[in-house]
Amino acid sequence: MNFQNLLARRTQRMHVNAIREILKVASQPGMISLAGGIPAPESFPLELIAELNGRVLATYAADALQYGLTEGFPPLREALAARLSTRGIPVGAEEVLITSGSQGVLDGIGKTLISPRDQIAVESPTYLGALQAFTPYEPEYLPLVCDDDGLIPDSLEEVLKHRAVKFVYLVPNFQNPTGRTLSMPRRRTVAKIIQNYGTLLVEDDPYGDLRYEGAALPSLKSLAPENVIYIGTLSKVFAPGLRLGYCVAPLPIQNWLVLVKQGVDLHTGTYGQALAAEYIAGGYLDRHLPRIIDLYRPRKAAIIDALAHAFPDDFRWSRPEGGMFVWVEGPEGMDMLRIYTHAVENGVAYVPGQFFFVDQDQGRHTLRLNFTMADGPTLERAIALLANVMRRHG
Amino acid sequence: MNFQNLLARRTQRMHVNAIREILKVASQPGMISLAGGIPAPESFPLELIAELNGRVLATYAADALQYGLTEGFPPLREALAARLSTRGIPVGAEEVLITSGSQGVLDGIGKTLISPRDQIAVESPTYLGALQAFTPYEPEYLPLVCDDDGLIPDSLEEVLKHRAVKFVYLVPNFQNPTGRTLSMPRRRTVAKIIQNYGTLLVEDDPYGDLRYEGAALPSLKSLAPENVIYIGTLSKVFAPGLRLGYCVAPLPIQNWLVLVKQGVDLHTGTYGQALAAEYIAGGYLDRHLPRIIDLYRPRKAAIIDALAHAFPDDFRWSRPEGGMFVWVEGPEGMDMLRIYTHAVENGVAYVPGQFFFVDQDQGRHTLRLNFTMADGPTLERAIALLANVMRRHG
Repeated sequence: MNFQNLLARRTQRMHVNAIREILKVASQPGMISLAGGIPAPESFPLELIAELNGRVLATYAADALQYGLTEGFPPLREALAARLSTRGIPVGAEEVLITSGSQGVLDGIGKTLISPRDQIAVESPTYLGALQAFTPYEPEYLPLVCDDDGLIPDSLEEVLKHRAVKFVYLVPNFQNPTGRTLSMPRRRTVAKIIQNYGTLLVEDDPYGDLRYEGAALPSLKSLAPENVIYIGTLSKVFAPGLRLGYCVAPLPIQNWLVLVKQGVDLHTGTYGQALAAEYIAGGYLDRHLPRIIDLYRPRKAAIIDALAHAFPDDFRWSRPEGGMFVWVEGPEGMDMLRIYTHAVENGVAYVPGQFFFVDQDQGRHTLRLNFTMADGPTLERAIALLANVMRRHG
Repeated sequence: MNFQNLLARRTQRMHVNAIREILKVASQPGMISLAGGIPAPESFPLELIAELNGRVLATYAADALQYGLTEGFPPLREALAARLSTRGIPVGAEEVLITSGSQGVLDGIGKTLISPRDQIAVESPTYLGALQAFTPYEPEYLPLVCDDDGLIPDSLEEVLKHRAVKFVYLVPNFQNPTGRTLSMPRRRTVAKIIQNYGTLLVEDDPYGDLRYEGAALPSLKSLAPENVIYIGTLSKVFAPGLRLGYCVAPLPIQNWLVLVKQGVDLHTGTYGQALAAEYIAGGYLDRHLPRIIDLYRPRKAAIIDALAHAFPDDFRWSRPEGGMFVWVEGPEGMDMLRIYTHAVENGVAYVPGQFFFVDQDQGRHTLRLNFTMADGPTLERAIALLANVMRRHG
């Protein structure tokens, strides 16, 4: 059989995930990987799972194993609505849609909204998983200019003035890959711009709870409720292996997302939703979250200190107040994809920054470092090794 | 904001699930619903879950809560490969792809293969969930003619001779909605036809394990391995709430399905996969399955007996050897959607058969009955009530 002929046009546009190929070496024994984007396993409330299992079986019995509503398991929707309401997003349970990870929301949004050649505005650089979700639906991307305070509002307005944008996609808190946070004045301005232009904005907030310093900023959803789809996840504050994301969308869009989700996976796993409902409603999340923050805060400090101590003077890096990533820029002209090979030979892996740009000719001199998967001394050693590689091969 | 303008073309083709609306009354208190398509909660191995939870935490610890491979949790892939190999599908673990329910495979196949206006051949009537998965990718459907022995091979050959078919979609065992099984001679003929025409066939087998009488028949996958994507699920033999499906596809297609799945949900929930791995590899499935069959067999007998006893002479119905459904045909000219209202008034719900046809002008005189959710005496009462409704309003 000729299988290539069977592929849909959209599939032919998809490429083997280059990062995935590159990162295969990152998991070799002895490698210090700053390339990952996953939570430390010691951040999981593993010791609580047996107790939560007991509560789930006692409370829900067979209902925890049965088919469920596409919209989500009602006790989890209630628990999330209550939590969102204390964070400036006052919603009822019926406004929360549970999805299979935040990836599930991103795919649903792409499937619901994107026709071929639709224009989607994204931060430059942006989260790769969002591009993977949207690209099969054949959009065109409009990159937005960002600096240390996140998206530059003028860049957004310029795009909205001249182009018919289906939606804007942003990660305002501790962005992946840069670790940058959209400043408070800019949040107000961005909210006003999307309201003026009647533009839909997708606010992806996987890291908002992981703040190690400074004060929490209001979500764009709270500033422009009608214009924003807010996306959250339990992957960073509970367990990514349960694949639990959620969103709060304007009602007409939520209705379409539900219809689309019926065809994609019917509903998100009930048992995992029941575990999460007990985790949140039982107060476990609020008790456990400070432990995750206490685990990551010193790691963030360690990597920033190590960069300042070891890296050459002509490098710059972001100063994240939370999340999982630091963004490093070398001098223009450096090629971090080429240097990756040398880094790996010296036992340290990272992600070359170009992969996070819609136009991969950009960002060749940048790289993303994760600081949640290694402890302080290991991070210090890794950054010292990496600094040597940069000096030798830069 | 004008949300309607934001919708993708594909979304505008999707309609609120009419069955879902109709079935809202089916869950009213006091209603006997033969409309469902879900396993009886008493079929779940609820009493084993605590033990399986213990095994999962002891064996996998934090790995059961962590991000996993898109392809699936290795111990579950191994357990399913071993099980498939004893059933005429000799595969290694690396050939089994785990998905978020069998709905997840169907969506992945649609997304990977269907370009707008591609032709998909389906049994008439066919499984509604497959249509829901495929339709957003904008195919055209070619209905295939079926009788009590399932798909009529000549009908398939006629279509393949004249049309460029992307793939054929079949449910050969105890089909939803008809309960019919593709006979052994026809399996051989269908396998030969798809080999001759170099056609891809999607074999969806959710009910194969639920056989109450007769001998198991070989899968089409075992007869034409190169041409078939085989789809299985743990929803009917373990717990649908875990959303665990799987497929065995020709390798080039599997590779594309994995790439597509990365964008859709990254991977299927790890914890549920770990539970299922222990359930299968620990021998629990093989010990529990006979209990499910013993639960459903008398229900199947009860509904068939009741139909023979109560229904008018000019009605016909299928004689399923397994699965969950009986298909009833009234005399031509009857309108089971109209009669549905009367049935519900009399306390019994079913699914009007027209919804399972690509062309809903067909099948107006048909209906689908589920027999797994009610016990024998209840089924007997429901069929008696329904027979009266048919006599009064037919």
